[in-house]
Amino acid sequence: MTAPKELLERIQLRLEDSFTGIGEVVGDMPPADIADLLNQLTIVEAATVLTMLAIPRAVQVFDQPTMSRRAAILENLPAARAAQILEGMAADERVDLVQHMGERDRRKLLPMLRAEARAEVERLCQYPDHSAGGIMTTEFVRLDPSMKVGDALKHIRAVARDRESIYACYVLEPLTGRLLGSLSLRDLVMADLDRPLTEVMRRKPITAEALEDQESVANKMAKYNLLAVPVLEKDGSVVGFVTVDDVIDVLIEEGTEDILRLAGVEPGALDKPYFDNPVWLVVRKRISWLLLLFVAETFTGTVLRHYEGELAAVVALSFFIPLLIGTGGNAGAQTVTTIIRSLALREIRVKDGWRVLAREASTGITIGLLLGAFAFGRALLWGAHMPLAATVAITIVVICSWSTTVGSLIPILAERFGVDPTVLSAPLITTLVDATGLVIYFSIAKMILRL
Amino acid sequence: MTAPKELLERIQLRLEDSFTGIGEVVGDMPPADIADLLNQLTIVEAATVLTMLAIPRAVQVFDQPTMSRRAAILENLPAARAAQILEGMAADERVDLVQHMGERDRRKLLPMLRAEARAEVERLCQYPDHSAGGIMTTEFVRLDPSMKVGDALKHIRAVARDRESIYACYVLEPLTGRLLGSLSLRDLVMADLDRPLTEVMRRKPITAEALEDQESVANKMAKYNLLAVPVLEKDGSVVGFVTVDDVIDVLIEEGTEDILRLAGVEPGALDKPYFDNPVWLVVRKRISWLLLLFVAETFTGTVLRHYEGELAAVVALSFFIPLLIGTGGNAGAQTVTTIIRSLALREIRVKDGWRVLAREASTGITIGLLLGAFAFGRALLWGAHMPLAATVAITIVVICSWSTTVGSLIPILAERFGVDPTVLSAPLITTLVDATGLVIYFSIAKMILRL
Repeated sequence: MTAPKELLERIQLRLEDSFTGIGEVVGDMPPADIADLLNQLTIVEAATVLTMLAIPRAVQVFDQPTMSRRAAILENLPAARAAQILEGMAADERVDLVQHMGERDRRKLLPMLRAEARAEVERLCQYPDHSAGGIMTTEFVRLDPSMKVGDALKHIRAVARDRESIYACYVLEPLTGRLLGSLSLRDLVMADLDRPLTEVMRRKPITAEALEDQESVANKMAKYNLLAVPVLEKDGSVVGFVTVDDVIDVLIEEGTEDILRLAGVEPGALDKPYFDNPVWLVVRKRISWLLLLFVAETFTGTVLRHYEGELAAVVALSFFIPLLIGTGGNAGAQTVTTIIRSLALREIRVKDGWRVLAREASTGITIGLLLGAFAFGRALLWGAHMPLAATVAITIVVICSWSTTVGSLIPILAERFGVDPTVLSAPLITTLVDATGLVIYFSIAKMILRL
Repeated sequence: MTAPKELLERIQLRLEDSFTGIGEVVGDMPPADIADLLNQLTIVEAATVLTMLAIPRAVQVFDQPTMSRRAAILENLPAARAAQILEGMAADERVDLVQHMGERDRRKLLPMLRAEARAEVERLCQYPDHSAGGIMTTEFVRLDPSMKVGDALKHIRAVARDRESIYACYVLEPLTGRLLGSLSLRDLVMADLDRPLTEVMRRKPITAEALEDQESVANKMAKYNLLAVPVLEKDGSVVGFVTVDDVIDVLIEEGTEDILRLAGVEPGALDKPYFDNPVWLVVRKRISWLLLLFVAETFTGTVLRHYEGELAAVVALSFFIPLLIGTGGNAGAQTVTTIIRSLALREIRVKDGWRVLAREASTGITIGLLLGAFAFGRALLWGAHMPLAATVAITIVVICSWSTTVGSLIPILAERFGVDPTVLSAPLITTLVDATGLVIYFSIAKMILRL
């Protein structure tokens, strides 16, 4: 929901006016909507609104991953209030926030936290950003194997106010902290109160390793329809759990990464909202691919210089260059995108390589024949003589078949040799097809036009 | 988890051998893994394995959205068994399956369902495929406003075995079926047993309309961190609810659509796994964009014919054509992809248009200056004389600025005029930049080289 304009105006009015009653204006809006609203104010205005809210409400707002500039806003709050908010936040969001803070603020704010919360932040900051450990929550419900279902429910009632999610509870070995089994709240509610937990729990729940990539955790949870997955350290002890709403954020983030990579934009560090990335960073993330492609594309010049004689003899040959390599590039981009996505969703595996190649080649030939027929007519209409029109039409057929084959072969080879195919971009295939497409074009031209 | 090869071989051995003991081989594998395994067998083999499993287990396997060829496999089962499986499935998966069945099978199987289940399938089939109604589950827990928390928990214990998810329970007005409030299982477990539900329930839960687009429902649930959202008909009555695992499937599906569209592949009807789409369908979904782009690309020929004299005078001008339009196309593709994704994630809104344009233009100029300097050196090294090298370098600067501007302007204009920007593809921008880039190139060449 977009914050309605008048509400924004009312808030800005209040800010200039009396600074009171903000709590009443934002009423009982969901915290995600308050975050939306704050995103449209300046940092100082947002900080002012936050000082008007009760602490638990401010904490809820700060817990929204959609809220931008959290670190900057926190800096603008009175230090004591900032510490209170930081203290109240969910562990995973707090770590995310601390990681985006400047060194100075970190040194100012962290000492104000309780020793326990501070130690936890420092421990969690050690996990890589995109790992299960980096997105997990540490506040899960720990159950003892000696408990009965009734004890567990009583325990949950006592502690759950502090826990982000109680839909997954874990039974741990008392001394080692190793995972014995998992129980959902549903399992507990459905079971008889005096059954021992060890009879009700699931003994081999699906787990994630602390250093496992977040995308792999997300795929696991999507596949097995899990609401939460426990995160284990190397020694088998449970250090936290990843919830389904973290996974949704991961899926959106990874989707963005895949989309940007396919267009040849290096996504690393661009995971912030559009306007939060400084222009120089955007330039840096785009220029590397552009330079690489530029260098690769200079080979087209080498090819053309090689055929300088033919070009000088039949200038009309050059008219079709952008059309031919453009079509080849488009057909290649379609294929490489389809294959990379199918590989990511595990619809295709390396061992299916030959089948994929056969499918894409026949798709390419079919598409080439259709477009070739069209191009033949178009070239004649344009006043090209018959041999030139034939050259163009035949080149289209060959280029389309060639580009779909290359577009399917390269991502599969990448996967085969352990390179993540999503690092390949569609422009890379396009560029590759440009240079080779020219060789195809001039070879066919030389044959047909007897140059 | 990939089904280990030896397990597959053991199953195929059993199938040829004695047809018994399959249940023991697949042991207590998660249903999602059994589905994976079946996906690697032939339809007849998969059907055979399914006849070996107990009905509740077979139902769990059929409830996996990852299982492919469900309709075809069902056709190969004895009709009575097929009906039993269909009857046991979750309502949302059942509808999905029935919608993918042939008319003949539908007429054979539907009459075998209980009248109630049949009526439900027929009713759900009326909701569009990509709407909240099309992905919802109908088996939610209905609570009465006169109940107390203890009654509700007792009611849940009695009925929950049939319900797909009990994490969201809805309090309905007894006669009209209108939504009065929602309760999570957590709310119920945490509340005192003798409090009336009307005191504990949330009165204004976030809801979805039955005809609402599935992507909008998914975004809502992601934003508000919901595990379930009730789906309302126009009269305010609750007809079902969408769960978080449906939303994850939607996010993956919509991610695929966005990615394919950006590469110029029309995704409609291609939402099945890679190998399940017949080649002719793939050709149809790709050719429309290719033809459109082909026609657009023919303008490059028109432009080149217009500059025939210049090309004949300086053949070397043609050497740089693919390089220049390729670079412009790549820079444009980067921008259009970034902007389309940011619009989809609502990081950019139409009213930010000018700011976006200013950012992208300055990014384009910066990138153009860097690449232009590089191109100048490269052209000189290649033996081009100074004026030609200058022409190439200046063209790079202008083309990069131009393509990033066009690449940001067009999606924003699309959004402004109510056209979904994701229907724009990166190749569309590339093609547009190709023809206009040539005009820029030859205009600069005419000025500098005095042609």
